[in-house]
Amino acid sequence: MGAVRMRVQTIMSLVIHVCHLNRKFTRLPHLAGSQQNLDLAKQIRDEWMEFGLDSVELVPYDVLLSYPNKTNPNYISIVDHLGTEIFNTSLAEPVPEGYEDVTDIVPPYSAFSAKGQPEDELVYVNYGRTEDFFKLERELGINCSGKIVIARYGKIFRGNKVKNAMLAGAKGIVLFSDPADYCADGVEPYPDGWNLPGGGAQRGNVLNLNGAGDPLTPGYPAKEYTYRSSLEDAVGLPKIPVHPIGYHDAVHLLHKVRMNIHTNNQVTRIYNVIGWIRGAVEPDRYVILGGHRDAWVFGGIDPVSGAAVVHENVRAAGKLMKKGWRPRRTLIFASWDAEEFGLLGSTEWAEDHARVLQERAVAYINADSAIEGMYTLRVDCTPSLHTLVYDITKKVSSPEEGEEGMTLYQSWHKRDNSTERDAPWISKLGSGSDFEAYFIRLGIASGRARYTKNRKTERYSSYPVYHSVYETYEIVERFYDPSFRRLEAVARVRGGLIFSLADSPVLPLDCVEYAMSLTKYANSIYQLALKHPAAMQQHSVSFDSLFFAVENFTVVARDFHQRLDQLDTSNALAVRMVNDQLMYLERAFTDPLGLPGRPFYRHIIFAPSSHNKYAGESFPGIYDALFDIENAVDWQKAWDEVKRQISIAAFTVNAAAETLKPVVS
Amino acid sequence: MGAVRMRVQTIMSLVIHVCHLNRKFTRLPHLAGSQQNLDLAKQIRDEWMEFGLDSVELVPYDVLLSYPNKTNPNYISIVDHLGTEIFNTSLAEPVPEGYEDVTDIVPPYSAFSAKGQPEDELVYVNYGRTEDFFKLERELGINCSGKIVIARYGKIFRGNKVKNAMLAGAKGIVLFSDPADYCADGVEPYPDGWNLPGGGAQRGNVLNLNGAGDPLTPGYPAKEYTYRSSLEDAVGLPKIPVHPIGYHDAVHLLHKVRMNIHTNNQVTRIYNVIGWIRGAVEPDRYVILGGHRDAWVFGGIDPVSGAAVVHENVRAAGKLMKKGWRPRRTLIFASWDAEEFGLLGSTEWAEDHARVLQERAVAYINADSAIEGMYTLRVDCTPSLHTLVYDITKKVSSPEEGEEGMTLYQSWHKRDNSTERDAPWISKLGSGSDFEAYFIRLGIASGRARYTKNRKTERYSSYPVYHSVYETYEIVERFYDPSFRRLEAVARVRGGLIFSLADSPVLPLDCVEYAMSLTKYANSIYQLALKHPAAMQQHSVSFDSLFFAVENFTVVARDFHQRLDQLDTSNALAVRMVNDQLMYLERAFTDPLGLPGRPFYRHIIFAPSSHNKYAGESFPGIYDALFDIENAVDWQKAWDEVKRQISIAAFTVNAAAETLKPVVS
Repeated sequence: MGAVRMRVQTIMSLVIHVCHLNRKFTRLPHLAGSQQNLDLAKQIRDEWMEFGLDSVELVPYDVLLSYPNKTNPNYISIVDHLGTEIFNTSLAEPVPEGYEDVTDIVPPYSAFSAKGQPEDELVYVNYGRTEDFFKLERELGINCSGKIVIARYGKIFRGNKVKNAMLAGAKGIVLFSDPADYCADGVEPYPDGWNLPGGGAQRGNVLNLNGAGDPLTPGYPAKEYTYRSSLEDAVGLPKIPVHPIGYHDAVHLLHKVRMNIHTNNQVTRIYNVIGWIRGAVEPDRYVILGGHRDAWVFGGIDPVSGAAVVHENVRAAGKLMKKGWRPRRTLIFASWDAEEFGLLGSTEWAEDHARVLQERAVAYINADSAIEGMYTLRVDCTPSLHTLVYDITKKVSSPEEGEEGMTLYQSWHKRDNSTERDAPWISKLGSGSDFEAYFIRLGIASGRARYTKNRKTERYSSYPVYHSVYETYEIVERFYDPSFRRLEAVARVRGGLIFSLADSPVLPLDCVEYAMSLTKYANSIYQLALKHPAAMQQHSVSFDSLFFAVENFTVVARDFHQRLDQLDTSNALAVRMVNDQLMYLERAFTDPLGLPGRPFYRHIIFAPSSHNKYAGESFPGIYDALFDIENAVDWQKAWDEVKRQISIAAFTVNAAAETLKPVVS
Repeated sequence: MGAVRMRVQTIMSLVIHVCHLNRKFTRLPHLAGSQQNLDLAKQIRDEWMEFGLDSVELVPYDVLLSYPNKTNPNYISIVDHLGTEIFNTSLAEPVPEGYEDVTDIVPPYSAFSAKGQPEDELVYVNYGRTEDFFKLERELGINCSGKIVIARYGKIFRGNKVKNAMLAGAKGIVLFSDPADYCADGVEPYPDGWNLPGGGAQRGNVLNLNGAGDPLTPGYPAKEYTYRSSLEDAVGLPKIPVHPIGYHDAVHLLHKVRMNIHTNNQVTRIYNVIGWIRGAVEPDRYVILGGHRDAWVFGGIDPVSGAAVVHENVRAAGKLMKKGWRPRRTLIFASWDAEEFGLLGSTEWAEDHARVLQERAVAYINADSAIEGMYTLRVDCTPSLHTLVYDITKKVSSPEEGEEGMTLYQSWHKRDNSTERDAPWISKLGSGSDFEAYFIRLGIASGRARYTKNRKTERYSSYPVYHSVYETYEIVERFYDPSFRRLEAVARVRGGLIFSLADSPVLPLDCVEYAMSLTKYANSIYQLALKHPAAMQQHSVSFDSLFFAVENFTVVARDFHQRLDQLDTSNALAVRMVNDQLMYLERAFTDPLGLPGRPFYRHIIFAPSSHNKYAGESFPGIYDALFDIENAVDWQKAWDEVKRQISIAAFTVNAAAETLKPVVS
């Protein structure tokens, strides 16, 4: 283990050039499906080969994308009683200085919006969350049916807002950026500060894919020969027009509006770049670092701050390879396409290679935006990676001024302690980035890390210029990370994870941490159910089986790690066997039957929230069965479903425990 | 390899005592859920421990079974115009000599029949096959709706007959054994010969489970804590009364009848016996020999002739273990319960241990009835086992008189040559026995072997006394295998398979044979589609992608075996890696999305026929999409589904090929 630690540290101490990269990759827009994004793919392929990877390939898929009509722009208008348009929202954002000559900046739009020109009264639905619509309908008696609704961005994934609007019967939805959510206090709008200017607007897709990938080929890779469903049968497309606007336009919209939406869906070729380093000892074990390359416009933060981290880790690995190093396991580096259109590139590749990934993938580390704030580290990962994340951050220096000599762990710990233990806060994985198919569908241990804002004091949503034209190289260089030391710290964390996972003889996965998390989640879902004490009793709902299962898992996990301490590491087959148990643990939490109505969400412990794709929900089957149960039409049926989901969760935890037991009864 | 061959031959030359066993296990009825069958489970457990297994466990599940009402018997009556019963079918079969004092012989019934006393005209539907109902409805203009139908046994699984009757709107179905199907020419009825007596009738379940196992817990093991659906939501239960009769009763039934069915469904505890021999080198690789223990009555053929084979192989392994032998991989021996009620014991255990089986199971060999005829060997197995089956039968002697010095392979080859090559005939796996969950759901390489009749000349169905009270020890001893040499040959084939699979350093699985079979199946489904040349052209249906995929698989499989020939077998990890590729090949043909409407049939290359559970269908997704397509309501939709299924099949074959490629791109 000593030698491995040294090797990992060697990698982590390599110079990382994120500053050069950010600039190079952000000069032009790199919209998925565009020539520029293909050119960038080729450039990355060529550079990765030069860095010294064993092989790099361009992997194409033909997926459904969505673009505005270039000759018939999208906008919202206020119409008078004669139907005359008396005010129109802007057709584009004011382009930032230095980018005036750039062509092919796609104007703000909601990708996959339905076409249409609905005209009606406008109903304000706050954030468009489930609870916002409940309040409107149940408390205020406001009916959205047949109306156009307007929701402010923030709090939840925009696709969920659109779904909620459709469920409420709305015939169109306008999304706007409210300064309350997209401007931080005391900060100027870009270019003088990093707040969103009034003319800026947030692009984004408004799909409800639930993990399906390409809407026309759910479950299968979108190859040339693949059967494609009709648009009517496509997964997750909104049936109503959707359009995003900035706050300068939003203040004008009152009463009756007309939406003018002409966006087109079209099957388009996209390209992933996949690079390989063959493992020296176990080439059939894969550790993956993947992040997307496509951007809505320049992608200064999203994704280039993350793509740069992948690039620098490839460069670092290449340098080591030239010195004779080769990891024990195979490393795969991925530059995904069309993440912005619904995680399409990463999901199609996962579908394409599901079998070998299920057999061979040890872990997936995600590399989307590396920075979304200036405060401290943010990590979302599977519980079995907690310990490794802590170990690695103890070997990285704090990037903050005035914290010289402190480790990243110490800085992070000081700034964001967990509410449950004396350690930095780590979250569950939700979705909204490319790890989804790997973690939620395939059950591969996954994690992500980035630099973030202070989640307790900074109340704006995401980061203000998110998905606007103002996401430039300069906003990172001037405001977010002038020294590029934060990006470097994130690069070292992501790199440390993949190199440790690829190089450690025994996989650095901690099953006891998984047991602790399961205990926490079981308690938490039980507390939620306890809000209905009468119904619990009437329907004989018991969580005993789940608590027994979690206790069983806990005992088995502890025993497993005790046996691991006695392992003869000179016995290659013995090491392989325990590593297989460690690798397949995450897989064991998946169920081929999937969650109710969401067949591609197969993880029984974690899923994206049904009400907000960005957030992770634990024991999602039970959670969804309990949701709003007091208003269920058939209580008997609803509580039966709760019982069924408890039974499935208990069985899954027991089944996962079995994989860690001695392999012979 | 030499040493391994010797070890396998050592095992195969051990004395096999099938004759003693058959008698011991057939003295009493062993109906699933009965005290006798639990007693037998305990006896087997104790004997297996004595033989020397490392551990043996009794594994209970609580599943839905179905029994006649003891105080209110089932029968069919002829009623006159006043509703008076003027003739009743027999309540039981005449008990064979020597068994007169046996209690607890369950009378002939259709397990899981609905209760009811429908009364109506009787419509004869021949075998009750899909094509029989098509003929009645489309050619003869006979409507079965609201009628009671009567079908003769044979040709297809009885559950399919019942399903077809329900689809035709029948309100009850009588099943009878026709002498044309249950009496061989020139043979006397039992006890003077092995034909079915006129008072005998065939028991059997009439479920349409499609692989779900326990009807109340589809997808999950039926443990105490498991959520159970209501009987209304149960999988596969018939909605109409069903009852089986013998041919002496059948001749009386004409015109108007009344069914009197009082059978009860009840959740009942069943017990599998699971025995383990820990592998010496790779304990986390499992080779399974499993067969059922429960019988409708005495089970002289079904299952005891098969259970005896398992028992003797356990005894043989135990003897070798006492001499210091231990297989390279772990051996698991299973005595399944409630196979007769829908493969319940084996399916629940597969559901319970799905995760570890998917990770670790190398192969499953089935051990149901070892003999159903007196002519030659019959083998159904996955294509990758063809070569091993041939190799093993070359090491076993022919059991036939007058064939001294001949091998079993030579005898089999002479008696039943393949139509496609100079080798004995091997079939696809269908269903109707316990391999189903292991092969079709989990994708574990599987096979079965038994002694059979001459399939070209002997036209009766199954064997005549099948599932009647006349399946005794004596019928085997007097007629089927007086020397017990045929049973012994089957025991050596089954044993040879599991010991080779457990002991060979490199797994004896042949991917090139799989490629050859895929080519055959692709040609065959293409020929079927070509029956619709105009529609094929109109809807632009092409099989090119499937043929390309099969060609791709073929090249990759050949390359794989060429690399295998160069393998450094002294490198433990290198051997493990290719063995993982071999083991997971079968898994790669499964798809978690399953076949349309049959979520537990996940194998894309093989499934039980939708029209006859006993038969195997290749490329079942395409086959079902093409079936009766000329009568589809919406041709566009129907042919789109054909195209979708071709695309899924092509992708699956390509994906399986990928698992055999070098593990790094």
